[in-house]
Amino acid sequence: MRALKARLPNESFVYLGDTARLPYGTKSADTVTRYAVQASRLLMKHDIKLLVVACNTASAAALPTLTQTLAPLPVVGVIEPGAEAAVATVPDGPIAVIATEGTVKGGAYVRAIQQRSPRMPVVQQACPLFVALAEEGLRDGPITELAAHRYLDPLLATFPHPRGLVLGCTHFPVLKQTIAKVAGPDIVLIDSAETTAVAVEKILKEKSLLNGGEAKAPRFLATDAPGRFAHLGEIFLGEPIDPGSVTLVDL
Amino acid sequence: MRALKARLPNESFVYLGDTARLPYGTKSADTVTRYAVQASRLLMKHDIKLLVVACNTASAAALPTLTQTLAPLPVVGVIEPGAEAAVATVPDGPIAVIATEGTVKGGAYVRAIQQRSPRMPVVQQACPLFVALAEEGLRDGPITELAAHRYLDPLLATFPHPRGLVLGCTHFPVLKQTIAKVAGPDIVLIDSAETTAVAVEKILKEKSLLNGGEAKAPRFLATDAPGRFAHLGEIFLGEPIDPGSVTLVDL
Repeated sequence: MRALKARLPNESFVYLGDTARLPYGTKSADTVTRYAVQASRLLMKHDIKLLVVACNTASAAALPTLTQTLAPLPVVGVIEPGAEAAVATVPDGPIAVIATEGTVKGGAYVRAIQQRSPRMPVVQQACPLFVALAEEGLRDGPITELAAHRYLDPLLATFPHPRGLVLGCTHFPVLKQTIAKVAGPDIVLIDSAETTAVAVEKILKEKSLLNGGEAKAPRFLATDAPGRFAHLGEIFLGEPIDPGSVTLVDL
Repeated sequence: MRALKARLPNESFVYLGDTARLPYGTKSADTVTRYAVQASRLLMKHDIKLLVVACNTASAAALPTLTQTLAPLPVVGVIEPGAEAAVATVPDGPIAVIATEGTVKGGAYVRAIQQRSPRMPVVQQACPLFVALAEEGLRDGPITELAAHRYLDPLLATFPHPRGLVLGCTHFPVLKQTIAKVAGPDIVLIDSAETTAVAVEKILKEKSLLNGGEAKAPRFLATDAPGRFAHLGEIFLGEPIDPGSVTLVDL
């Protein structure tokens, strides 16, 4: 949403956080798909013109189901734009992907990257502690650094050495500085936020759906504790969120 | 369940893990109560004779509601037995409590301890990373040790120095060795598992509900991914769980 707001300042946003059931990254594809369908049904009631699945785990597990269920509404996930960015950034590879357990297990990034570049070497690593560290706001410091070593050292020891590292979970950009420090200067960090915003802009243009007027204030929906949502949301959005602007919803 | 099985070897157990919506520790009391009521309604269908709320967060948030909703079924939480154990172990205090965000915020341990010992000094600390560390099986090592320092050092710096440390989350006993090492030899670790088993035995005796015959094999129910449940469950139960013995259920 941060990248989308920056690229599409005239668009109005409705953001739903399923805070009562997060995290999705350790859950099965079936459960994540069920939750994602419920979440998008609720968003449909808010007259959205396009849905961004701003969660790598949900994109990896549920995109085909969501696209089918919500048709003709355009649905954009973050895996394809992330793979696009990876191949554009380091066309000769190799590419390393860090993500949640669920995203790694499903192999969606490997497929999306190799669809664009069939012989591209891709290595993956699940980083479950990163989610907890980001949620606690531990952007840097010794605990986060040790956790980064735990996950990245095996990736960095692979041969040939990865040149690009995909941040395959929307929580990981919060830890970007520490991840970059541990990964070292020879590796480029790749975040799907920018390329997702580009993909959304392209679709809105193609379908003549761009908003001509001014954006309305963002609406925030959460399935649990609006105060906590606002507090944590600020870390990700990079701007204040008024707890009064967050509506509690039930899926 | 490990402590209950050891103390009550003739009893049969039905264990439900709400793996599709865990962790509860970061969620609001309202949401945790709603989930706990749904979980216990499902367990009622399995002809249980007593319910143990084997989660500190759910005990702290939902015990009065569960007791009322399920009456006359006896309902045992883990907070009261934990407070009982704390006051019995270090009657002169002070007592420190480590728990989830939700349990700390609700203050249930402080109330339960001071009900037994009104002038007892109690300090609390939420340890959100501990849950992720236990779920990843990181019982010891540098990351867990640093996390323990992060949470325990401020507690240990309080004056007068705590003499007892309540492990106020069912995940924390997995990290017991590291917690003990960081807490140092002057502090006794207090776990509610044993005293909960004692409380359950007492109620079963009083109500003449003890099982005379042999125990049936435990039944495991999970709201997500039976394989993952079995794998993680073994860490907590300390014995193998056959993934085939885990039934997927929907709340």
